Amino acid sequence: MPTTEQLLDNGQGVIDPDVFFKMNSPPANLKDFETKLEQFVDYHQEKKTRLVFITSGGTIVPLENQTVRFIDNFSNGHRGACSAEYFLEAGYAVVFMHRQFSLQPYHRHYTHNPSIGFLDYLVQKDDNIQVDQQYNDKMKTVLSNYQNAIKNNRLLLLDFVTLSDYLFKLKSGTRILARLQENAMYYLAAAVSDFFIPSEKMHEHKIQSGGGALTLTLDQVPKFLTPLVSVWASKGLIVSFKLETDVNLLVPKARQALTRYGHQVVVANMLSTRKQTVTVITKSSQQVLSLTPEDIAHHVEIESRIIPQLVHIHDGWISSGATKACQQ
Amino acid sequence: MPTTEQLLDNGQGVIDPDVFFKMNSPPANLKDFETKLEQFVDYHQEKKTRLVFITSGGTIVPLENQTVRFIDNFSNGHRGACSAEYFLEAGYAVVFMHRQFSLQPYHRHYTHNPSIGFLDYLVQKDDNIQVDQQYNDKMKTVLSNYQNAIKNNRLLLLDFVTLSDYLFKLKSGTRILARLQENAMYYLAAAVSDFFIPSEKMHEHKIQSGGGALTLTLDQVPKFLTPLVSVWASKGLIVSFKLETDVNLLVPKARQALTRYGHQVVVANMLSTRKQTVTVITKSSQQVLSLTPEDIAHHVEIESRIIPQLVHIHDGWISSGATKACQQ
Repeated sequence: MPTTEQLLDNGQGVIDPDVFFKMNSPPANLKDFETKLEQFVDYHQEKKTRLVFITSGGTIVPLENQTVRFIDNFSNGHRGACSAEYFLEAGYAVVFMHRQFSLQPYHRHYTHNPSIGFLDYLVQKDDNIQVDQQYNDKMKTVLSNYQNAIKNNRLLLLDFVTLSDYLFKLKSGTRILARLQENAMYYLAAAVSDFFIPSEKMHEHKIQSGGGALTLTLDQVPKFLTPLVSVWASKGLIVSFKLETDVNLLVPKARQALTRYGHQVVVANMLSTRKQTVTVITKSSQQVLSLTPEDIAHHVEIESRIIPQLVHIHDGWISSGATKACQQ
Repeated sequence: MPTTEQLLDNGQGVIDPDVFFKMNSPPANLKDFETKLEQFVDYHQEKKTRLVFITSGGTIVPLENQTVRFIDNFSNGHRGACSAEYFLEAGYAVVFMHRQFSLQPYHRHYTHNPSIGFLDYLVQKDDNIQVDQQYNDKMKTVLSNYQNAIKNNRLLLLDFVTLSDYLFKLKSGTRILARLQENAMYYLAAAVSDFFIPSEKMHEHKIQSGGGALTLTLDQVPKFLTPLVSVWASKGLIVSFKLETDVNLLVPKARQALTRYGHQVVVANMLSTRKQTVTVITKSSQQVLSLTPEDIAHHVEIESRIIPQLVHIHDGWISSGATKACQQ
């Protein structure tokens, strides 16, 4: 197997996406992932349902082959899990490819709460266990929406853990969805690592702490949006995200991404205000969506504004695809 | 404020524990943590209940001050959460200081399952929501044990996220428990980072990925067992853990820790077999505890063997403490 150095595609130390797949082994459950996804896509292709492929949560980058330590990204998957519900509400079928144990649509209302655990929702009543009355009303709605989505085969949950898992599944998943052409949207909300340690450079065992300071050198992760936009999912509507902590970089970096990759939409957000305000950027437009203090008081979620906007852009994308097809 | 370089206590680049506390700010909720813990400890001191302070789950080390990326440790908190239940069964009061959203005692039976989410346990029945019958029997026992622990004020849940949170709370917590003298056990099952980036050396904003490879230099985390054993909790029974992936290092490193810190017990375990076998090591003994294939088939947990063994060691520790007190 060639080493990373032999396969660098430029002077900056960034390998080509194809090289990444040659240098890493696919996840053990990739076949199972593909089978489930193919069945789901076939079902919805026949029904002509629009489908959105949501990626959600952060990827990890192991520091050792027998992993004890890893680099993670800040993301509990809130954006993705929340968005999935609004896409389902808008009539889409949803593939929810998420970091294992990050927030999931519907379940999210009852998990990841630091002060209420699973059993705190429950009480024993005669010989049964019931949900405490105080949670009953809201939970009836959430449970019924969730059960409808599952019963109608509208929600497929798939997971990943490492960067490598994610990239193999992203490639495979977007290629399977490609048969839906313009009817597919790709909503890439996952927080994907920008840096990784190639397996060949990794420590085999747990790094020992006796030797003072530790220096780690991480390579840049290849830019997977390039093949995704141009090859894997070229006819779909592709929405990427840009998260920054420096407000001055936000819009310039979002515009730079649109130019570099040639896809359709960037949703740009600041780490500190991401639940209240986002900017939806296309080649020809830039729209700020914000919650008012009144919205926030009424627990309105910003995703209830983002999704309709994207559905609108998707309408246009599908029409223009149909136009192009007629002209051919 | 002095820089880390000015405060190094040796040539290896390891700062003194006290220096760490001077260089970092305490967590915002430290006062609240202390108040809750003091009330809990006072209550059990009066009742003369034995108390165990369990730390559980991994600490994170941020790579940026406005954190987008961080280094994490492999640990879902299984050992700690599971052990807490057996300590409660053995009559102990339990302080469960855990990484936020890691496994918690009792709740753990229904969370962190990749194929069953919160709502999958529930069904609507008339106007109520009930637990599905298939889970009812086991859950009745688990729920009742959990509710008894809470009702009898025997379980206190406290959390941390970063290494710095953890260390401030460890220091403060063990000092509060010190009033229980030999009656307190410290069961340090958390996977604590060995390396960190001092705040002054950290990037302020999200590290940008345009510049090729990324080099990170991490300092070694001070050895907090030293002040913990000699000052903070000098009369308690202290149990630390040693996790390795290289079997040849396991027992030598565990013995080295006992010698270096002068505490009482190391529970040594291999990453790959930690749920089936551990070695409980004291200055004068070394006992391997293992599950048989039959145990595993019957879902016996290794913690059901570890805890009684530690309770036995604690019996001896308390008696020897009483003897020492009489001799004084």
